Amino acid sequence: MLFKVEMTVNIPASLPAEQADEIKAKEKAYSQRLQREGKWLHIWRVVGQYANVSIFDVADNQELHLLLTGLPLYPYMDISVQPLCAHPSSIHNA
Amino acid sequence: MLFKVEMTVNIPASLPAEQADEIKAKEKAYSQRLQREGKWLHIWRVVGQYANVSIFDVADNQELHLLLTGLPLYPYMDISVQPLCAHPSSIHNA
Amino acid sequence: MLFKVEMTVNIPASLPAEQADEIKAKEKAYSQRLQREGKWLHIWRVVGQYANVSIFDVADNQELHLLLTGLPLYPYMDISVQPLCAHPSSIHNA
Amino acid sequence: MLFKVEMTVNIPASLPAEQADEIKAKEKAYSQRLQREGKWLHIWRVVGQYANVSIFDVADNQELHLLLTGLPLYPYMDISVQPLCAHPSSIHNA
Amino acid sequence: MLFKVEMTVNIPASLPAEQADEIKAKEKAYSQRLQREGKWLHIWRVVGQYANVSIFDVADNQELHLLLTGLPLYPYMDISVQPLCAHPSSIHNA
Amino acid sequence: MLFKVEMTVNIPASLPAEQADEIKAKEKAYSQRLQREGKWLHIWRVVGQYANVSIFDVADNQELHLLLTGLPLYPYMDISVQPLCAHPSSIHNA
Amino acid sequence: MLFKVEMTVNIPASLPAEQADEIKAKEKAYSQRLQREGKWLHIWRVVGQYANVSIFDVADNQELHLLLTGLPLYPYMDISVQPLCAHPSSIHNA
Amino acid sequence: MLFKVEMTVNIPASLPAEQADEIKAKEKAYSQRLQREGKWLHIWRVVGQYANVSIFDVADNQELHLLLTGLPLYPYMDISVQPLCAHPSSIHNA
Amino acid sequence: MLFKVEMTVNIPASLPAEQADEIKAKEKAYSQRLQREGKWLHIWRVVGQYANVSIFDVADNQELHLLLTGLPLYPYMDISVQPLCAHPSSIHNA
Amino acid sequence: MLFKVEMTVNIPASLPAEQADEIKAKEKAYSQRLQREGKWLHIWRVVGQYANVSIFDVADNQELHLLLTGLPLYPYMDISVQPLCAHPSSIHNA
Repeated sequence: MLFKVEMTVNIPASLPAEQADEIKAKEKAYSQRLQREGKWLHIWRVVGQYANVSIFDVADNQELHLLLTGLPLYPYMDISVQPLCAHPSSIHNA
Repeated sequence: MLFKVEMTVNIPASLPAEQADEIKAKEKAYSQRLQREGKWLHIWRVVGQYANVSIFDVADNQELHLLLTGLPLYPYMDISVQPLCAHPSSIHNA
Repeated sequence: MLFKVEMTVNIPASLPAEQADEIKAKEKAYSQRLQREGKWLHIWRVVGQYANVSIFDVADNQELHLLLTGLPLYPYMDISVQPLCAHPSSIHNA
Repeated sequence: MLFKVEMTVNIPASLPAEQADEIKAKEKAYSQRLQREGKWLHIWRVVGQYANVSIFDVADNQELHLLLTGLPLYPYMDISVQPLCAHPSSIHNA
Repeated sequence: MLFKVEMTVNIPASLPAEQADEIKAKEKAYSQRLQREGKWLHIWRVVGQYANVSIFDVADNQELHLLLTGLPLYPYMDISVQPLCAHPSSIHNA
Repeated sequence: MLFKVEMTVNIPASLPAEQADEIKAKEKAYSQRLQREGKWLHIWRVVGQYANVSIFDVADNQELHLLLTGLPLYPYMDISVQPLCAHPSSIHNA
Repeated sequence: MLFKVEMTVNIPASLPAEQADEIKAKEKAYSQRLQREGKWLHIWRVVGQYANVSIFDVADNQELHLLLTGLPLYPYMDISVQPLCAHPSSIHNA
Repeated sequence: MLFKVEMTVNIPASLPAEQADEIKAKEKAYSQRLQREGKWLHIWRVVGQYANVSIFDVADNQELHLLLTGLPLYPYMDISVQPLCAHPSSIHNA
Repeated sequence: MLFKVEMTVNIPASLPAEQADEIKAKEKAYSQRLQREGKWLHIWRVVGQYANVSIFDVADNQELHLLLTGLPLYPYMDISVQPLCAHPSSIHNA
Repeated sequence: MLFKVEMTVNIPASLPAEQADEIKAKEKAYSQRLQREGKWLHIWRVVGQYANVSIFDVADNQELHLLLTGLPLYPYMDISVQPLCAHPSSIHNA
């Protein structure tokens, strides 16, 4: 089941750089694990912003919520979620 | 070069159903041709709306503009375009 | 799987009253069938507006899209969809 | 008398974690007491957000205001309230 | 139980003037009847606009919905509703 | 001359509780004095918010500005002002 | 008593040009009469738009409402009103 | 050449009162000097807000930018600028 | 004197295609004449939209207003204007 | 390939002036280097704001992202990006 998720990161200036780097490293590992498991299908950088556009493929809403709130950068993110489904014109639905 | 494109369709009630169906058939063929050519990478339906979220892979801005304004449903669409690029956490960039 | 769906109805003045009444009757029957099937859990009227707040319980995004686009009043509706999941404070989750 | 209430929680980073946990525990107990009393009919988590969609059933506006401002997390919440009433298509009104 | 209701009237140019005048006359009579019954406490004109700010005092949400949807000008109105309650600084609460 | 004034209060967490209480006490006395003088006709609490909807009756714009900027809580308020006048349907204008 | 009034004109394409010209001529005469009477202090064109920024000097809210709703172009205008008063830095207040 | 400029002042609570008063005194002197030079034609207070509506008459865009960024309160202001020109209905254009 | 002007074109479906084409041809000629005169410095197409971003270099606000309202497509345009000036980092200011 | 980029700078008051000046000097040098390389075609100041409107000419989205995130003031900027292409009326396309 597919969802578009848009995440914008706002790390406060008061967070020590070392701590921020540690969280970002965890974020990257977390993201790549979910990508390899086939749950985080796509992640693209939005040009000029500390933000991404992502596509998730999950079993249900509950799993998506757990994956998103488990993001190491979650406390510093604005997240919007939009449910998607198959488009009748897609050649991948035939 | 990747772009997220979001399209919302508003076909006026005054358009005869037969004419609308003809345009939609052309739109589907047009979309599927671009998908097969690898320029329209993804198209998903937004749940509950006559709208889609798409990813285009084009040579440059000019090509994207030509592809979008060539859509048979273009006169009835609201379109927003967001340039994307590789995300450092993507496993597809390694 | 739960979704909050908000629907606002805008029937154009140009639609003949008889035809509008027929569509509304179909809408009511359609809604009540889905309620009896347990897919449309709740529907409340928004005070002062031709609008409702609803809760759907569906198998997946695709089913929700089919149910919503099948609404007899769908061509005259603005629809927004928000995915929900269990709240840890709910007494219905124990 | 029914109301849809949407609450978004913003706990400032400056609040010590221990104190935040204490408030959250009180919030959960408070919410569950109101749910058992039949005043807080539903509470759902919004996917990907520290937010909920709730339905309250109260005697009047005054009671709703007292219940909401009594929330232990109230000082950290954005709250919106929308009055609801019976929908003519609901099968629960017959 | 008090509500602030804001109404903005948009009568389409296509409505014949005679018919519009008839509806406005009915609206005035309807409003004044509710004012005399003590349900429509206040109505003020917004300066420079075909709009009003009103205060209703009703038994419950359902009654407010019935009163508002019964307005002769209802089909041509944008309506927003905000539940109110006693303010602790009001001298009318002592 | 009537104005609708909407005030939303945002007291920063950094303000000591004792000082906040003192300001609120002054605010209440100030408000009640103006109510008794017939300048602050109505004050209602907005359900679920630290906000009010008020009606002022003042000699002119200048007096309203002085009354509002004299509010003890003024530095912590968002204020919006809307000029009102008699509505032709009001039974209080006859 | 001063007010800033912003007016945007939207004359529908369906209004015959001759009729539109007649209304505009009446509008100009109406505006200039009020300017000569000292009630419409200033009127400036917004660059690139069929809109103006105006300053009115009236006895009270009621008079302003009558002047604005008496505008020949009133049925085709969006109007916003903002009450003004003397600024302590103005050299015209000394 | 005329511009409408709207300024809203937000002095942070952390600025010592003495320093704020000094800046405000400089602001007043600066504003009055420009008014006497005929560059700052009008300044009005927005009722209920720490904000003003102003009209500037300057040689060109560059001069306006220099005047605005030279405001002693500039670092604490939100500023919006709208270019104006002569209105054909103005009696001051004849 | 520089201005950024953004224009979005909305030609109504009711305008006959032949008439629309005639207006567009006039628009192109008008635009190119102003470009050759050095008053319309730049015009770019916004990707995916019937809209442009333009830079004008004019003597004053009045001239810009005359140029914009003289556009053959003006009755079908939404226009926004933003005054610009020299940037201290520009290498063209040295 | 052309993009319109709008940047608004918000330097927090907590940043020491000396450090801010150093960053601004680096920003100016960085900007001028890109201008000389032909990648940052235009930069204009928005009148009355610490903001600019810029036109970039880059090889692709990725390069634009690298240039923008490399801005010394990037951590203090709000940035919006809009892809542009040739306009059929431009005299520079012949």
